[in-house]
Amino acid sequence: MNSTDLTMEQRVSLITLAVKDVQASARFYDGLGWQRATGPDDPDEVVAYNLPGQTLGLYSKSMLAKDLGIPEEAIGGFSGVTLSYNVRSKNEVAPVLDLVVRAGGRILKPASEIFWGGYIGYFCDPDGHVWEVAHNPFSPLDKDGAFRWGGY
Amino acid sequence: MNSTDLTMEQRVSLITLAVKDVQASARFYDGLGWQRATGPDDPDEVVAYNLPGQTLGLYSKSMLAKDLGIPEEAIGGFSGVTLSYNVRSKNEVAPVLDLVVRAGGRILKPASEIFWGGYIGYFCDPDGHVWEVAHNPFSPLDKDGAFRWGGY
Repeated sequence: MNSTDLTMEQRVSLITLAVKDVQASARFYDGLGWQRATGPDDPDEVVAYNLPGQTLGLYSKSMLAKDLGIPEEAIGGFSGVTLSYNVRSKNEVAPVLDLVVRAGGRILKPASEIFWGGYIGYFCDPDGHVWEVAHNPFSPLDKDGAFRWGGY
Repeated sequence: MNSTDLTMEQRVSLITLAVKDVQASARFYDGLGWQRATGPDDPDEVVAYNLPGQTLGLYSKSMLAKDLGIPEEAIGGFSGVTLSYNVRSKNEVAPVLDLVVRAGGRILKPASEIFWGGYIGYFCDPDGHVWEVAHNPFSPLDKDGAFRWGGY
């Protein structure tokens, strides 16, 4: 294959969230009911959760800074990445946000109707990473939870 | 079901990247060989790419700010989220980074060995969203590209 014919496949293997204290952050995700793929023998600076076909990793902010060759203070703010957890019906949104609060997360926007017909709330994890809990009537989830864009 | 028995399933439906100019940003992802799920009749403020079981969306920064009820200037910096595109062999990392450059991306760190035995490069898209191109010998990809944490 000619190198200029190369394309990237449309997939994301790992979503990494840099966090100040990996174990404290992991307790939040554990509190949502998530099961770790990493165990007590794994290094302290990473906790991984397997999702369908990919992994979400919590990774030490200082390690990521070192990997990227940037000062740790350069990691901060909100770069405009959100992760959405879509649910099967409108009335599942608020209970998930309640669960988030019990686990130690912070609500950024309570569940509410949005102009295009969805029902959405926003929260952030203990490090400020932003999640959306959404019901999108135009993009129903598959039985196994898979999502495909169906417009909005 | 008692509401306190509720858990979140371990999945991410949408990865949304807020961008200044959605169409300009989409041309970068198009240039990687990605196929849009949205078409010319869809609203200008969103371009969606279907990934396995989830969608990556480019979304107008000003719209996200409005959705969250924050000023647009509050979106900036680097919050420490990285998306990793894992490849099947070490010698695929550099050609993907070359493709990224041809498409208009910026290399943050050229392909190099990392202490735990992986081979990794970092790039950012036109809005500064950080991606990793990685070969992790401890987590081989499935035939269909699915990734599962296998340690590092």
